[in-house]
Amino acid sequence: MASCAGPLIVIGGHEDKEGDKAILQEVAARLDGGKLVIATVASHEPEGYFDAYQKAFAALGVTDLVELYVNDRDETRSPKNLDLLRDAAGIFFTGGDQLRISSQIGDTPIEEMVRAIHDSGGVVAGTSAGASVMSETMLVRGSSAESHRIGDLHMAPGLGLIRDVIIDQHFAERGRIGRLLGGVAQNPRVLGIGIDEDTAIVIDGDTFKVVGAGAVYVVDGSTVSHSNIAEAGRQEALSMFGVSLHVLSSGDQFKLSSRRPCARDPST
Amino acid sequence: MASCAGPLIVIGGHEDKEGDKAILQEVAARLDGGKLVIATVASHEPEGYFDAYQKAFAALGVTDLVELYVNDRDETRSPKNLDLLRDAAGIFFTGGDQLRISSQIGDTPIEEMVRAIHDSGGVVAGTSAGASVMSETMLVRGSSAESHRIGDLHMAPGLGLIRDVIIDQHFAERGRIGRLLGGVAQNPRVLGIGIDEDTAIVIDGDTFKVVGAGAVYVVDGSTVSHSNIAEAGRQEALSMFGVSLHVLSSGDQFKLSSRRPCARDPST
Repeated sequence: MASCAGPLIVIGGHEDKEGDKAILQEVAARLDGGKLVIATVASHEPEGYFDAYQKAFAALGVTDLVELYVNDRDETRSPKNLDLLRDAAGIFFTGGDQLRISSQIGDTPIEEMVRAIHDSGGVVAGTSAGASVMSETMLVRGSSAESHRIGDLHMAPGLGLIRDVIIDQHFAERGRIGRLLGGVAQNPRVLGIGIDEDTAIVIDGDTFKVVGAGAVYVVDGSTVSHSNIAEAGRQEALSMFGVSLHVLSSGDQFKLSSRRPCARDPST
Repeated sequence: MASCAGPLIVIGGHEDKEGDKAILQEVAARLDGGKLVIATVASHEPEGYFDAYQKAFAALGVTDLVELYVNDRDETRSPKNLDLLRDAAGIFFTGGDQLRISSQIGDTPIEEMVRAIHDSGGVVAGTSAGASVMSETMLVRGSSAESHRIGDLHMAPGLGLIRDVIIDQHFAERGRIGRLLGGVAQNPRVLGIGIDEDTAIVIDGDTFKVVGAGAVYVVDGSTVSHSNIAEAGRQEALSMFGVSLHVLSSGDQFKLSSRRPCARDPST
C-alpha cells in the first residue's frame, strides 16, 4: 500500500529566488493553491526572510503565505500560531540554526502539526538549517573546508521526518565532504546526503529526485572495510576505506531502501 | 626484480616548516647527507621561497642546499644550471603554477636530469604545483568549492613520474573533491589522489604511505556504473554513480596496482 505521506523537499541553501526558481517551483506545484507557512524559527533575526519568500512565491502564483515564528517554546502553544498551521497545504523551514528549530519546536504542538501536515500528504520543505533538521540525527556543527578530525563533529536529534539519513547542506560550496564522511563513519546505518546550494532533493516515499543547479552527494558506508573513528585520538584525521560515493545532478533519482541511483533519461 | 627508482614525496601544499616538520623530515631522511636542489621554477616570483626552505632544512641537518630557477627554456641548457643537478641526491619542486614547471622544463636537459635522479634512487619531492606536475596528465585549472561542471576542467601533460594517477592538492581546504571526480570521470583508468595541506604521500615502488596532519582521498572510478561527462552540456553538473572512495590518514598505506588501502598498525 502506498504511503499517504507528502513530499519532503530538502534544499541545500541559497535556492534561486529571482531567476527560474526551479526549486521553489517544485514547492509551489505541490501546494495545489493551498496555504504555505514560512517557518523562520531557525533564525535569531528573522526580519526580511519572509518578505523575500513572499515576493518569490507570489511570482509563482502562491499568494496564501503566512509566517510562523516563535521566540520561545511557550509560544508554540499559542492558539494564534496553531491556527496558522491548521489548514496549511505545506510548511517551509528557512535557514539559520538547526538547533533553534529542534530546541524551540521539538516535542511541542507545532511539531505535532508539522508531522500531521506531512502524514496527510502536505509538503514539508526546508533549506539550509531547515534541511538538516529533517533527519532523525542531524549535523549541528563540524569543520568545513578541512578533513574530518575524529572529535570534531556535533550531532543532535532532529525532527525525524526522514529516517536513516544524515543531511548536510551548502555542500560543495563549504567543502563539507569531510564532515559528512565523519558522520557516516559513526554509524554506516545512516546514509549521508550532501546537498549543494541552489539544489534540492524531492523525496516521495522511498525515492528522491534531484532538482536545481548543483550536485547531490550520497555517501554509502555499507561497503566500508575499515575506519579509525573509534580508536584514533580526537585531533587525528579520519581514515575510512571503501566508501561508495554517488554524485547526482538534476533529473537523477535515488532509491533509498536499496541505496541505488538511477540516471536521468537523457532524452528529457 | 625491485625497481631502483627513488621515492617520490608528493605534498598537498603548506607543509609545516616551523613545528615538527614531519614531511620535510621524510625528505631529509632520504637524502643520506647528499645535496638537495630546491626548484622554484613554478613561481613567477620565487624570491623568499628558497630562504624559507633553507632555514627549515638546516634545522633538520640538511645543509647542502642549492636553488634552481629558470626564467626561460633557454636557461635549461646553461652549464651552470645543469651543474646544480649533476651530483644531487634529491630535488624539491616548490609551489606556484604547474604549467610553468611543465612548459619551462618539459623536454629539456633539466627534465632528463630530474628523471635520472629518480631512476637512480634519488628523491623527487614536490609541494602544491610541484605535486600536481608529477603525474602524466595533470590538473591545471578547475573550480574549487563547487561541484564539477562538465566543461570546467583543464588538464595538461605533466612530468609523468607517476603513471595512471591524477593528483590534486590543497584538497579539503579548497573543497576540490568535485574537480578530482571530474578528472577521474574523464577516464577511470587514472586513480584520483587528493592531498590535504601539510600532508604527503611517500611513494616507494608500487606503494605509498601517508605522512602529515591531514587526509588523503583516493578516488577509484573502476566501479563507476554511470557518468554524464560525455553527454551533458558544459554548464551542467557532473553525475557519477558508484565511485569507490578511500580516506587515508597518517600511517595508512595504499597499493597502487591493486588499488587497495591498508590501515596503519594501531600499535604504532
